[in-house]
Amino acid sequence: MTEYDLTTVTAALSRRDWDDSTDGEVRFALVGLGWWTREYVLPVLTDLDACAATVAVSGTASKRESVVDDWDRVETALSYEEFHEGVAVDEYDAVYVCTPNATHLDHARAAADHGKAVLCEKPMEATPERAAAMVDACERADVPLIVAYRMQTDPAVRSLRTAVRDGLLGDPVHVHGHMSQRIGDIFPDGNWRLDPDLAGRGGSVTDLGIYPLNTTRFLLDVEPVSVRATASSDGELFAEIPDERASFEVTFDDGTVAQCFASQNAEFSAGLEIVGTQGSLRLAPGFFDAETQRITLTRDGERHSVTYDPVDQMREEFAYVAHHLLRGEPVDPTGAHGVVDVATIDAIYDAAESGERVSVDTDPDPAE
Amino acid sequence: MTEYDLTTVTAALSRRDWDDSTDGEVRFALVGLGWWTREYVLPVLTDLDACAATVAVSGTASKRESVVDDWDRVETALSYEEFHEGVAVDEYDAVYVCTPNATHLDHARAAADHGKAVLCEKPMEATPERAAAMVDACERADVPLIVAYRMQTDPAVRSLRTAVRDGLLGDPVHVHGHMSQRIGDIFPDGNWRLDPDLAGRGGSVTDLGIYPLNTTRFLLDVEPVSVRATASSDGELFAEIPDERASFEVTFDDGTVAQCFASQNAEFSAGLEIVGTQGSLRLAPGFFDAETQRITLTRDGERHSVTYDPVDQMREEFAYVAHHLLRGEPVDPTGAHGVVDVATIDAIYDAAESGERVSVDTDPDPAE
Repeated sequence: MTEYDLTTVTAALSRRDWDDSTDGEVRFALVGLGWWTREYVLPVLTDLDACAATVAVSGTASKRESVVDDWDRVETALSYEEFHEGVAVDEYDAVYVCTPNATHLDHARAAADHGKAVLCEKPMEATPERAAAMVDACERADVPLIVAYRMQTDPAVRSLRTAVRDGLLGDPVHVHGHMSQRIGDIFPDGNWRLDPDLAGRGGSVTDLGIYPLNTTRFLLDVEPVSVRATASSDGELFAEIPDERASFEVTFDDGTVAQCFASQNAEFSAGLEIVGTQGSLRLAPGFFDAETQRITLTRDGERHSVTYDPVDQMREEFAYVAHHLLRGEPVDPTGAHGVVDVATIDAIYDAAESGERVSVDTDPDPAE
Repeated sequence: MTEYDLTTVTAALSRRDWDDSTDGEVRFALVGLGWWTREYVLPVLTDLDACAATVAVSGTASKRESVVDDWDRVETALSYEEFHEGVAVDEYDAVYVCTPNATHLDHARAAADHGKAVLCEKPMEATPERAAAMVDACERADVPLIVAYRMQTDPAVRSLRTAVRDGLLGDPVHVHGHMSQRIGDIFPDGNWRLDPDLAGRGGSVTDLGIYPLNTTRFLLDVEPVSVRATASSDGELFAEIPDERASFEVTFDDGTVAQCFASQNAEFSAGLEIVGTQGSLRLAPGFFDAETQRITLTRDGERHSVTYDPVDQMREEFAYVAHHLLRGEPVDPTGAHGVVDVATIDAIYDAAESGERVSVDTDPDPAE
């Protein structure tokens, strides 16, 4: 393989670059039955041999009951209180937490108390301290805590990572990543993602900016050191958050600088580009899974492109997690990894408020 | 035409969106006979009916004499001193200044004193004050002063501008632009672009970052308000400049934020993407002229692409300038427009040094 043959890099990866033969099944309690769980998670868990959804947990009785009615394997509906009290703990092995960010800790703590593995949606929590407390709770209970960064199990992103590790970029110099959508088109009546009490300090960086941030960390094996940010809001739907749109810059520990953009009120866009001393790699479109993705390597001024058919990102995610849980293997990305994103996002909001460069405290004190 | 039919927008533009029929000829004195003038300018002026190179000005006798020997229409070789003194002023109508940045003012002043139109390479000068002084000199002499931003006469960029003006983006929200090359591959023994005495305060923002900066101003009809920047150098070739690589953010007067990257020591890369409330437009690759360019419009989640065959950017530039000069029409981009970029670049270096947000003084006092 010549050192810049991207097609060969990609062909060398199987559809999954980890062994997906597994005996057994991980039974999930689904905590939070909103749009994402119903549209994207339940079909996948029903389809995958290594997974099942068996318990539906929601604060809304009609939601949890309709899930039991609609999905064969889901036999038990629980309120949050019942779930916290440990009702039906024998009916599930792991918990998938997909509630508003600021409630993740309470559900993860309950799961840990019950001795269950936790797969928690991103971002882990609304504050770094609460995210750190989640890590503590799971460590004390000795249960795995995994953050559901589905980019880390996306075949195109994993190919990119291999290309970076094979040195196709030389030394990384600069990253640009962006993600935007018009959330008002998805939720015309508003959504908890725009409510700081539930989402955390903002809505665009927290929900969308985390994609280029975490994907850069994953691809380059780097950690954030400091950030700067510019954010603004003026639309009525965004009155409670500071970041209808945000531009932020992250300086990583190897000196690489990432410039990122996130907005809940702009045309659907997403991509990531890394420029290095010897090559550049671009993923576009990225992050969203509805479209054919393209990776383009530029090296010595020549372009090489590879396309990736759309995958079901949640299927990749759950297959990967179940496989590793069933084999008793450690599962990335861990809670400790996720805390760093929450801390970085917190620093980004500080930076947007103050106008200053803000250091990222990657080891925050856990909340009580 | 549906409002998001990019192909129709593009087809509606002729190859040039201005009338290129012209009688007459503009005779240029070429001031500075480096790589750019010899490789990119002399062939174009020889080929275009509306232009001719008639006088070669250089500090190096062998250079100016070889140009007279090699190019039929170039009959007179002048030293800088002879040019400043007004030798052979009847042999040229306009002056093309392509010397190190910090010397542009002296040559432009001489040209203005001789009553000649000035086409000055970008960036106009090494400091905002000297750029402002150039504007003053040309105004006093009542001669046109044009800055050679060839993006502004590039057909793909002009199509993009039409698309923006037709509202295909909705309201612009975010811009990302980048340009990088390995200057060490082009000039292994170093180059004045890396010498602050000749280039200005730095080498990457000044020489390359100006492309996304000026192109954004041109496309969106916006002006810079404030900037932030992060820059670093560690390679030996870059010891005298602060910006072997630089990331900078420009906030414009309409609230649009542009994140830009420039490096003289990274893989060849260049592009511009604008995300708006209703659509996004991407030009990639951009700026360099050796490759087929592609404009991609995303609107309502659908992609529309148009490609552009490579053009000779200097040919477009000179044809446009000559056409307007011959008709006695005003020619954009003017010196007053160019001063704003030099002021913005100066603010970017201040921002990189201080770590602070820096306001752009778009109306600097002219140097003595």
